[in-house]
Amino acid sequence: MENKTRVAIVGSTGYGGVELIRLLQAHPHAEVASVISSSSAGEPIAAGFPHLSGIRTELLDDVDPAAIRAKADVVFLATPAGVASKLVPRLLEQELKVIDLSGDFRLPEPAVYEQWYGKPAADPADLEQATFGLCEIYGDRVQGTSFISNPGCYPTATLLGLVPAIKAGWIDPDSIIVDAKSGVSGAGRGASLGTHYSELNENFKAYKINKHQHVPEIEMVLSDAAGRDVVTTFTTHLVPMTRGIMATMYAKLTEHRPEADFIQLYEEFYAGRPFVRIRPEGQWPATKEVAGSNYCDIGFAVDRRTGRVTIVSVIDNLVKGAAGQAIQNLNLMMGWDEDAGLRFVPMYP
Amino acid sequence: MENKTRVAIVGSTGYGGVELIRLLQAHPHAEVASVISSSSAGEPIAAGFPHLSGIRTELLDDVDPAAIRAKADVVFLATPAGVASKLVPRLLEQELKVIDLSGDFRLPEPAVYEQWYGKPAADPADLEQATFGLCEIYGDRVQGTSFISNPGCYPTATLLGLVPAIKAGWIDPDSIIVDAKSGVSGAGRGASLGTHYSELNENFKAYKINKHQHVPEIEMVLSDAAGRDVVTTFTTHLVPMTRGIMATMYAKLTEHRPEADFIQLYEEFYAGRPFVRIRPEGQWPATKEVAGSNYCDIGFAVDRRTGRVTIVSVIDNLVKGAAGQAIQNLNLMMGWDEDAGLRFVPMYP
Amino acid sequence: MENKTRVAIVGSTGYGGVELIRLLQAHPHAEVASVISSSSAGEPIAAGFPHLSGIRTELLDDVDPAAIRAKADVVFLATPAGVASKLVPRLLEQELKVIDLSGDFRLPEPAVYEQWYGKPAADPADLEQATFGLCEIYGDRVQGTSFISNPGCYPTATLLGLVPAIKAGWIDPDSIIVDAKSGVSGAGRGASLGTHYSELNENFKAYKINKHQHVPEIEMVLSDAAGRDVVTTFTTHLVPMTRGIMATMYAKLTEHRPEADFIQLYEEFYAGRPFVRIRPEGQWPATKEVAGSNYCDIGFAVDRRTGRVTIVSVIDNLVKGAAGQAIQNLNLMMGWDEDAGLRFVPMYP
Amino acid sequence: MENKTRVAIVGSTGYGGVELIRLLQAHPHAEVASVISSSSAGEPIAAGFPHLSGIRTELLDDVDPAAIRAKADVVFLATPAGVASKLVPRLLEQELKVIDLSGDFRLPEPAVYEQWYGKPAADPADLEQATFGLCEIYGDRVQGTSFISNPGCYPTATLLGLVPAIKAGWIDPDSIIVDAKSGVSGAGRGASLGTHYSELNENFKAYKINKHQHVPEIEMVLSDAAGRDVVTTFTTHLVPMTRGIMATMYAKLTEHRPEADFIQLYEEFYAGRPFVRIRPEGQWPATKEVAGSNYCDIGFAVDRRTGRVTIVSVIDNLVKGAAGQAIQNLNLMMGWDEDAGLRFVPMYP
Repeated sequence: MENKTRVAIVGSTGYGGVELIRLLQAHPHAEVASVISSSSAGEPIAAGFPHLSGIRTELLDDVDPAAIRAKADVVFLATPAGVASKLVPRLLEQELKVIDLSGDFRLPEPAVYEQWYGKPAADPADLEQATFGLCEIYGDRVQGTSFISNPGCYPTATLLGLVPAIKAGWIDPDSIIVDAKSGVSGAGRGASLGTHYSELNENFKAYKINKHQHVPEIEMVLSDAAGRDVVTTFTTHLVPMTRGIMATMYAKLTEHRPEADFIQLYEEFYAGRPFVRIRPEGQWPATKEVAGSNYCDIGFAVDRRTGRVTIVSVIDNLVKGAAGQAIQNLNLMMGWDEDAGLRFVPMYP
Repeated sequence: MENKTRVAIVGSTGYGGVELIRLLQAHPHAEVASVISSSSAGEPIAAGFPHLSGIRTELLDDVDPAAIRAKADVVFLATPAGVASKLVPRLLEQELKVIDLSGDFRLPEPAVYEQWYGKPAADPADLEQATFGLCEIYGDRVQGTSFISNPGCYPTATLLGLVPAIKAGWIDPDSIIVDAKSGVSGAGRGASLGTHYSELNENFKAYKINKHQHVPEIEMVLSDAAGRDVVTTFTTHLVPMTRGIMATMYAKLTEHRPEADFIQLYEEFYAGRPFVRIRPEGQWPATKEVAGSNYCDIGFAVDRRTGRVTIVSVIDNLVKGAAGQAIQNLNLMMGWDEDAGLRFVPMYP
Repeated sequence: MENKTRVAIVGSTGYGGVELIRLLQAHPHAEVASVISSSSAGEPIAAGFPHLSGIRTELLDDVDPAAIRAKADVVFLATPAGVASKLVPRLLEQELKVIDLSGDFRLPEPAVYEQWYGKPAADPADLEQATFGLCEIYGDRVQGTSFISNPGCYPTATLLGLVPAIKAGWIDPDSIIVDAKSGVSGAGRGASLGTHYSELNENFKAYKINKHQHVPEIEMVLSDAAGRDVVTTFTTHLVPMTRGIMATMYAKLTEHRPEADFIQLYEEFYAGRPFVRIRPEGQWPATKEVAGSNYCDIGFAVDRRTGRVTIVSVIDNLVKGAAGQAIQNLNLMMGWDEDAGLRFVPMYP
Repeated sequence: MENKTRVAIVGSTGYGGVELIRLLQAHPHAEVASVISSSSAGEPIAAGFPHLSGIRTELLDDVDPAAIRAKADVVFLATPAGVASKLVPRLLEQELKVIDLSGDFRLPEPAVYEQWYGKPAADPADLEQATFGLCEIYGDRVQGTSFISNPGCYPTATLLGLVPAIKAGWIDPDSIIVDAKSGVSGAGRGASLGTHYSELNENFKAYKINKHQHVPEIEMVLSDAAGRDVVTTFTTHLVPMTRGIMATMYAKLTEHRPEADFIQLYEEFYAGRPFVRIRPEGQWPATKEVAGSNYCDIGFAVDRRTGRVTIVSVIDNLVKGAAGQAIQNLNLMMGWDEDAGLRFVPMYP
């Protein structure tokens, strides 16, 4: 019997952390060896998450790099902004492999991080060591590395929807508008008026228009794809649902092309990648069609009257937008099948 | 004691019809004298709508213009597309005042109606008699007329958000993109997979991209405001909630102007109109903040980096987007206070 | 023109407080003269509740009995448990009329309050002055008083459903089981894991089984109706919705009686009371059928096999379960029509 | 490599059918060899269920016992009432193993079926061949059989919560009241006013009080456990959520016993069964804590004042209440591990 790779999860009492636990429970090559929470160390993980009763019976560990090293080979960080920048160097010193789900190592320029996150950035030397793990775009760089910065939820949905068209030169990079919508779990488990049931239920609201900290991450990859600086208009909305992100994206066509061309372009671009599914002409994905799974589904509408294409991309924000892609990165990093442990069928309805 | 104006409601067993009943129940100058449904004539209205128990105890009448004339002075039509085009001429013959909530008389060009609605259009002679009742834009034309075509829900939210900026020449009419989201009640009370709870709950979906029948209605008014033909990119989405529409709108600025300028422009444009509320800088309205009321709330975000403005406009689709604006049109038509019977405070939470 | 009675609302930034504002906005004999919040004094009420933009433009006042007296004749308290017990005596000294929506004055026995609420009780001398304002049962006592303790949400739904059958001797008081369900707004606006959207959405949970602080209030009135001590089994559940309470109640019949008998009994019991509606045989009310209104709707099912009756009672927890009944008490206290300002049609859908 | 057992699913376009597909996709010993739908034969299964895009690419087969035999060894029927009673005999003739998820073979008395279901019952000779597969109670009978009638959703939640206490003689069988609540997916995928989003969202309603067709199934097992005839009061409610059932159950204690005794009794009763989890004292399960999984979680509250116990039991209606338990039955029937392919962690949040 195979010895499974042992993983530790820092931030096990947040939604990203428990989703990692859910997904890894069925992983063929990895197993959770330590669940870690600085705020609840010493308590059973199932006390705060009764859905784990009888499944994970251990106590939460405290954050201690040497102790983590004794138990695990790989560490996932599912922590709020500002934690990983300080903790990762201590974990790397222990020769642990690290996959960080936070935004702390996504932006190579400290000044950009500080502008958008409003916090001190990680040390430039540490930033340099991170590989940005947007699997379908930069997956080749991930294999064999030991420190991955996992992309954000909005950037994942947005970039998988835009990069092929930009690389092909089919859309004008200066014309891109992203209208994004997210379920509430993206805001985490912290209690505030902004996550209060009665405030959000039967309500739809916009927030952080053009100010979301995912903007520079999106523009970084779009610029890389376009070969020049790209700025975008980016709006985020809260949908009265728990899981799911849709990015509805608009761009000017450089010349008219029917939807069938887009479908073919994207199917070729993502050929061999198990988690991107392209919808047939006249169909667009809905968020529930990827719920609980690692899929990103994409559909197109071309309007000859306006010369614009509308691209619809959906993911489960906690899976492909967080824990699922992190495991996908683990798989690539370790040389396992890209979809090992991730072949979940979306839960519908 | 004043004799109230007697109104009849055709289509009383749809959501638009019962919302008219709810709102008119408190109207100071009008009273519901006949509730009409071709499909359920002879049954008590409260049988299908127990929330009306003890409030409206009458039986539903059948559709009969002469009988309506005997009971009422004004008729509201809250009927599916294709009904009003045939019924309105018979009602006008009876010298009834008519307010049609359907799309049958909104588009003056029969060919355009037939292209977008996929049904035979109304007679051109009848179309000519209709006044398009977007109150805050065309309210002056409504007074004293006897046949009003009430605007659609998406057009109301969209146009109130765009017209002042277009008239002022502050945005490029060729750059307009409207990303609209609606609660499910907009789809009516008909049962289908598309209105099935388990299919829509915890789900967010796009539909009819660039094909929605409200597109030509929006472009008609935008073109009127711009003084030349305007085409737009228009996406509709279904939100897992019952009521509410948000239109998130994007346009290129003709020159940079801060949000404060937009706020001032819109406040002046809508001065004296009781139902448009402009949000202060850095705030955008959420749909629940107008639930159950006739308000349209609007907020702005200007992005200097991209040279675009984002305009957020929300309404309750069944009130300002249907029954409420219809009563506002009644008020204007009759010379009553514009907000008579419509001073409902939004129901929050 | 009538001089309206001026009312002040302490706790204007909670859901009970803003619901009072919503309902009183249309009251023919009363007007809100002061909105009060100890936590947000000095801020505009609309800052925290943008749905009130343009409707209530004043600043929140601080809690100061003499200042309240200068502005108002009647005070509503929509404050958390433990506030009214200290504040009411100071308001009564000012010869203000008081309607307290909290639980502080509902239980005449201090020891019972302290057992169930876990807080110090009000002074016995103050407790004696309070009239328990369950309008349809004790409405006669309310007229002309100056200090009313407004019933709780669960007790209102439960007691209106049980009292007639108990008084008639048709059900065994020892057999009563109440299975109650509430929307989340009943938990107030405070942010906690227990009101977090992602924890409650698509979830149904039981809480405080047999321990809810409304148990003694229910048993107090049931005992009064039965003429002897009654204890009940009482379960509360959270429903993933904002508004609405359903109490599903079970009791053993003292002898078999068909549903029609119950219907007749209740219609006679509530004859002349505008807010209780009895459903016809084979029909039971749903919470949405009273949303936004002051109605309590009741239906019955008798099972000959088991000798039990099931009684279903629904209210809007923020209206008949709080602000609406408080205004109904104001109406009775002042000798106005019982339904003045409360003739709202339920908002459906 | 093991040859997997091939299964066919009749009724693949209903919620029970697609849930079988989802769960079986990861089964170690079984594989879906034919998806069958009489209404949509010839169409790709993913056309109606885009969440299966790229996962199940085959066309739907028509219902043909011989053709099924050629493809499969075991057939699941996830069909509406009245279909299996006619189809099962033809499948058994083909020497197919059959697991029927409908109610057609749960009640051994044809007259009882006809009374509660309002349809002709199955042939008595066929009824005799069925084994009622409530796994944790009758699992021993299942092994080695070839025709299983899978229990209903409400009965599963209810019976797992009541049987141990009844068998132990701790509760009075004449005192049982079951207040059950279900998500909307239990009503199936058929479109009707009763499954319409706008009618159910933000609404809570009771239905079929004491008339639900699951009543005789519940009483059959309770009577078996009690050793004498038991009748119950049984109420069903619709919760505005998609998945999940809670049964809140009330019974008179034969003598006082603290909650700890119940916990111990149930833990012993279900020892070795992987899918029943008992909550510690003072805690009750919520439906989301079992979402997407095959667990049934149970908690207790004993009230000394009334001498009653309240038992709370939750399941996912589409998993433990349908497809999951059907696979559990397959596992038992085939002699595989009881939880093979069913070790899903609940999806939370």
